[in-house]
Amino acid sequence: MSGHLYGVGTGPGDPELLTLKAARIIAGADVVAFFAKRGNSSNARAIVAEHMRPGQIEEALDYPVTTEIHRHHTDYRQQIGDFYAEAAARIAVHLDAGRSVAVLSEGDPLFYGSYMHLHVRLAPHYPTEVIPGITAMSGCWSSAGLPLVQGDEVLTVLPGTLDEAELVRRLEDSDGAVIMKLGRNLPKVRRALAAANRLADAVYVERGTMANGQSVRLADKPDDTAPYFSLLLVAGWSERP
Amino acid sequence: MSGHLYGVGTGPGDPELLTLKAARIIAGADVVAFFAKRGNSSNARAIVAEHMRPGQIEEALDYPVTTEIHRHHTDYRQQIGDFYAEAAARIAVHLDAGRSVAVLSEGDPLFYGSYMHLHVRLAPHYPTEVIPGITAMSGCWSSAGLPLVQGDEVLTVLPGTLDEAELVRRLEDSDGAVIMKLGRNLPKVRRALAAANRLADAVYVERGTMANGQSVRLADKPDDTAPYFSLLLVAGWSERP
Ligand SMILES: C[S@@+](CC[C@H](N)C(=O)[O-])C[C@H]1O[C@@H](n2cnc3c(N)ncnc32)[C@H](O)[C@@H]1O
Ligand SMILES: C[S@@+](CC[C@H](N)C(=O)[O-])C[C@H]1O[C@@H](n2cnc3c(N)ncnc32)[C@H](O)[C@@H]1O
Repeated sequence: MSGHLYGVGTGPGDPELLTLKAARIIAGADVVAFFAKRGNSSNARAIVAEHMRPGQIEEALDYPVTTEIHRHHTDYRQQIGDFYAEAAARIAVHLDAGRSVAVLSEGDPLFYGSYMHLHVRLAPHYPTEVIPGITAMSGCWSSAGLPLVQGDEVLTVLPGTLDEAELVRRLEDSDGAVIMKLGRNLPKVRRALAAANRLADAVYVERGTMANGQSVRLADKPDDTAPYFSLLLVAGWSERP
Repeated sequence: MSGHLYGVGTGPGDPELLTLKAARIIAGADVVAFFAKRGNSSNARAIVAEHMRPGQIEEALDYPVTTEIHRHHTDYRQQIGDFYAEAAARIAVHLDAGRSVAVLSEGDPLFYGSYMHLHVRLAPHYPTEVIPGITAMSGCWSSAGLPLVQGDEVLTVLPGTLDEAELVRRLEDSDGAVIMKLGRNLPKVRRALAAANRLADAVYVERGTMANGQSVRLADKPDDTAPYFSLLLVAGWSERP
């Protein structure tokens, strides 16, 4: 009898934004696995720490590369492909031995999450369940108290890694929008928002729902530095009956 | 001292998908308010029932109209506008008396949620906090085990109420897509997916995370009936390193 695989969403950062189900699954799992940048501690593990039990096996899956090599470079693809294959193999050893494994995933597991790379490799072979998490965007618009979309409106979620022209085109064609993966892309994203005439509507949220989280209108943010945990919200809601 | 207003996300249906924070806020609130269709019991209240305490004041906010009148008709706008103004006034009485009020919202409160109509009326005047919830779409793609978007991909959230041509245009221009508000719109949405060459990718999820929930490829669903709690998922993830 092989063990169960669980992809567990940890939510955006506030440990209280874990679901009751995630807390139960984490406490009951034989193995808890999490991704981290090599040399850094895992943010996902820190979020769920109070639900872990002594004696649980921990599997730290350390990325070999993150932003040092461009993600379209063949070296990156090779290294990251090998890494996911190896991580899946490490998890499979536990599942084959009948141990249940909870793989932590920041936010929601199947929404731009690293867990997806394990899911496609393991879910066809083992009993698997995904426990959804509060997405970063939900956490951020809730912290900012910003109603996002309503009624017939369209929401577009855009990675800040897209080309500037593509960002402009899509922002011009959206009611509400969320722009994730800011980092070094913020100057480009700011220009795209201005070109699409949406700069005045954009709200920047940093470390949403975490300690020291903050939000500010992008037009009022003087610099273009953005940490990993940041995104932009463009509210679509105009019609209010 | 006025009471605190809380917009509380209940998640998509499974009571275990409530967050720890939502459970705490609901248990501690003086008043719990919820929307319902007149004559129906509240789904949101049922999700959180086990966290409510005896002696809590309950405010049922019953919609005067839902789908009987077309939403662009002036009568609808008039009636629904009056209803939200009255609902906000009923909540304000409690807040003015120093009582905290938790307004329940299915899924996430600020994402196509009725709570938004109270938020814009009350948040400028009272201390307000929004507790995010698991969205219906996250619950549905987790239940279906369907990785949705990754990397540089764009996600588009579309209400099924849009015109057919508009749906086709937007589906042709999306990597991943979610189509909400199906109901009577399903035949039109199915035609739009076929025209955009995305019918084969579409997964239909009904009552996601609820008892008797199910998912099926839309191409394999023989009829075009869709209850209120249903949506379509179109996965974007193609590139897998
Ligand atoms: C790889 S994606 C993971 C998304 C996650 N699976 C989710 O459900 O939201 C990482 C991006 O999420 C955003 N993000 C994650 N947590 C955040 C937070 N607490 N505040 C602001 N942005 C956050 C950032 O834009 C970051 O680049
Ligand atoms: C008014 S919107 C509310 C959305 C909600 N605030 C959220 O965060 O997802 C209602 C739509 O959500 C979708 N929905 C809500 N719960 C669902 C469920 N359990 N399964 C499938 N679809 C659901 C349906 O498409 C429905 O038309």
